Amino acid sequence: MLNRTRNSHTARPAQPVAAPRRRPGARVVPPTAPGAPRVGGGVHALVRGDDNARLFDYEQRVKAAFDAIVPALRRVSALQHEEDFERQAQAIARERLGFELPAWILADAWVDQLDMRRLYAWCVFETYLRFSDDFFSADPLGWADEGEFQAFLQECGFHILDISPCADGRLAHVIRYVLRLPYRTVRRKSYAGALFDIEDSLEKWGETELLRFREGTPNTADAPTRYLKAVVYHYSSSAPDTEGCAAHGSDAVRAAEAGRERLLAFQQAVENSYCCGASIDLLLIGLDTDTDAIRLHLPSAEGGIEPGAWVDAAQLYDETRGLHARDAGERIDARLREAAPEAPSGMLRLLARLLENNLSQIEYVQRHHGGRYPDIGHAERFIGAGKGFEEVQLRNLTYFAYLDTVEEAAPDLDVGVKIFSRLNVGHGLPIPVVVRFDYHGKVPAARERAVEHCRRVAGALAARYPALAADGLLHTLQLVRDIDHEQGVGGRVEVLDCSVREPAQEAH
Amino acid sequence: MLNRTRNSHTARPAQPVAAPRRRPGARVVPPTAPGAPRVGGGVHALVRGDDNARLFDYEQRVKAAFDAIVPALRRVSALQHEEDFERQAQAIARERLGFELPAWILADAWVDQLDMRRLYAWCVFETYLRFSDDFFSADPLGWADEGEFQAFLQECGFHILDISPCADGRLAHVIRYVLRLPYRTVRRKSYAGALFDIEDSLEKWGETELLRFREGTPNTADAPTRYLKAVVYHYSSSAPDTEGCAAHGSDAVRAAEAGRERLLAFQQAVENSYCCGASIDLLLIGLDTDTDAIRLHLPSAEGGIEPGAWVDAAQLYDETRGLHARDAGERIDARLREAAPEAPSGMLRLLARLLENNLSQIEYVQRHHGGRYPDIGHAERFIGAGKGFEEVQLRNLTYFAYLDTVEEAAPDLDVGVKIFSRLNVGHGLPIPVVVRFDYHGKVPAARERAVEHCRRVAGALAARYPALAADGLLHTLQLVRDIDHEQGVGGRVEVLDCSVREPAQEAH
Repeated sequence: MLNRTRNSHTARPAQPVAAPRRRPGARVVPPTAPGAPRVGGGVHALVRGDDNARLFDYEQRVKAAFDAIVPALRRVSALQHEEDFERQAQAIARERLGFELPAWILADAWVDQLDMRRLYAWCVFETYLRFSDDFFSADPLGWADEGEFQAFLQECGFHILDISPCADGRLAHVIRYVLRLPYRTVRRKSYAGALFDIEDSLEKWGETELLRFREGTPNTADAPTRYLKAVVYHYSSSAPDTEGCAAHGSDAVRAAEAGRERLLAFQQAVENSYCCGASIDLLLIGLDTDTDAIRLHLPSAEGGIEPGAWVDAAQLYDETRGLHARDAGERIDARLREAAPEAPSGMLRLLARLLENNLSQIEYVQRHHGGRYPDIGHAERFIGAGKGFEEVQLRNLTYFAYLDTVEEAAPDLDVGVKIFSRLNVGHGLPIPVVVRFDYHGKVPAARERAVEHCRRVAGALAARYPALAADGLLHTLQLVRDIDHEQGVGGRVEVLDCSVREPAQEAH
Repeated sequence: MLNRTRNSHTARPAQPVAAPRRRPGARVVPPTAPGAPRVGGGVHALVRGDDNARLFDYEQRVKAAFDAIVPALRRVSALQHEEDFERQAQAIARERLGFELPAWILADAWVDQLDMRRLYAWCVFETYLRFSDDFFSADPLGWADEGEFQAFLQECGFHILDISPCADGRLAHVIRYVLRLPYRTVRRKSYAGALFDIEDSLEKWGETELLRFREGTPNTADAPTRYLKAVVYHYSSSAPDTEGCAAHGSDAVRAAEAGRERLLAFQQAVENSYCCGASIDLLLIGLDTDTDAIRLHLPSAEGGIEPGAWVDAAQLYDETRGLHARDAGERIDARLREAAPEAPSGMLRLLARLLENNLSQIEYVQRHHGGRYPDIGHAERFIGAGKGFEEVQLRNLTYFAYLDTVEEAAPDLDVGVKIFSRLNVGHGLPIPVVVRFDYHGKVPAARERAVEHCRRVAGALAARYPALAADGLLHTLQLVRDIDHEQGVGGRVEVLDCSVREPAQEAH
């Protein structure tokens, strides 16, 4: 076991995310940007204003905590050669960040100068840990009635909704914000370019069927429901040639086509691997990462996807604004029926729900982000590498690299390192990488294997980027989490190790 | 696609393994070694002499093909500066190895000297490919009635036998030779120290149950049969302190205890992960790699394993030799009943079958290998890395490193490289590594992913052992195989690439 000393990431009390006071110069998004369409509260009858307010408060609170780090450290830096530097620095940190800085980093500042790279990485990790702990203990994005959505899904003819968005940080909020779905009920597994792993999905399909057969969860295997696999690709309406999906060369048509192909391949894999009419249903979703408006590609009568036909939520938003709730809902239903007259009625019901949900997010972006995010490009705060990160449901917070090994995920990691070379290294700041492996605590020694996994990946990361690691421009925090521990709420992450450690500890 | 040119591993006709003529000095095992107990054909009534003859012919044929390489190349080497060297060399190769050598390697010999490392690696790969092709086309170890064993297994109360032996090359023949089981019916997955992966086994358990539920294969889920997981650890009766299992420090007690712990952990993982009384049965087997005699640890009444109690096949062989078949069988049954009076009768029936089968192997080693293998230590001919190698059912032919990535399997690979550093590098010969990934051809693009996988692992190998690779002391052959192609027989391996290539090809 690691030493659990004060001012180390291996020892920390549970505390909510600090909401630091705003400072001039800090990146704070104005409620409505100048020139953007101004929309009053709840103008659209189908928009849930209360949900929007709660979601914005959370987004604002978490991002402000991360964005307070640089200004606070700038201030600390300016004081580093003053005599009561340590006292002043801690006062600033407490006030602006809500926590104290590691005394051992501050204590050495007088000898040479403050090791700002270490300090920055430490603050990002500390802020991440507070955010993560808050998520698993206070459940800020929880759902009052998750059973309602599961029941609705089954009424529509599906027993599971398995979504693979692109791993781009600008899609990390797709479940809870963009689609307004309960994140514990929907499966999310992100991949670069939304090009999900077919073998992994086949395995999930098998697991799902077995639970239906053995345990009747979520329904029994004889119920005529299907496995619904969805892909979310993305594009940028403001800067289509540069801010779209990097994995598809910012080409929305290519991104959609690749998603469709992968979905069809998975469907064929299920059909060829299992007998007795095994199959799945498919859903292809496009997301404009500037506005969070979705487009739903329409199902064909044969269970395929019409590549060139979709219903656009932004258009529906404009078309139904000012209507009464009931009329707006009927208009959405009518548009879907016109566009896909042969689609099964259950699928159309689900699509209508997704479109209606997305109207709230369209208004959210209009109201709180000026209709278009100011950060239409990458602005992630850290890289998340490994398996887990259920708590990351916010846009542009995390660059995901879902991985088992650096060896297999090297291309994805290289993209992430390239992004952060511009965002951080170019300004002299290190790349913070959270290495995380979740495990099933009810499986004997699963924790030990997750720990081993974590250490191996952290080592392989340092080996892949030796120059960055040697220059203190790559820092890692190693975590595991027991996902069998009080499903969802309760099981906090466990810190194993951190590359920012006291030199004395390093000697051991 | 690769060029499929003559004299390259990317082009080869299907041919049976050559049976080179014996030469003085080649490693050939005499029918009975001097001083070993001499046993006449079929002295033990339960031994199947015909099976033994067939198995020995096959072992002899394959190993002789590999063992002919060094003497043939020595002879070739001695001639390399003669004027009609190429003609003479090809004549020797055809006669002794059954194939021609790559002309482009021979052609350069006059300039400097013959690149013996490349030539050796090329010959090992060519011999391996002929052996593998022969296996998948001629089915030399096939079973007349595989259904009989599956039916017997179910009568004993089990629907699957899933065996994890140690990955040591001295156990590679455990299914077909030591236990005399049909290799297509029994699952084999080897791990260093027999420490199998619990998550992988859980997945297999789920897959097996799903097939029973959905397809009634091998029986329906309501049949009261169980999943039987077996571990085979090993030890050396001649040199217990040095030639036992390296992963357990050549300590038989530790090896047995570790196997037992892993089995119990898997059982607990199934019980904790699934409801409704899900569980498995366990079997712990020890193997004396000098004599191929097994010991079966006895099941306890509670479904566990008695750590210190076993029945020894070598002892039973001596005890029942000279008895009539029926009496010998009854003696075995009686010994088992005495040793484990509370074990379920189905389990005892299976154990009796395994013991009886092993008597044939004990006599096989006595008759053909002098009662104790002359190569009690490592003497593998190549490293097999990746997933597949169903065709390797022979002792001391292959050091297995079952792996997805070099990153995860580095410790196992390091052991393999250490073994071959002694066997080959110490004599100036390279380490031949066959990198292989099998795939399900019915899953779309699975072949492309296997190809990608193969290339990635071959690259990672070269990166892990840069000095060996640079000195031409590490050579790789990359293969994939479609396991959905005519189950078992028929689907040959496909050669993707080989580190021994014509320089002209390398330039592309």
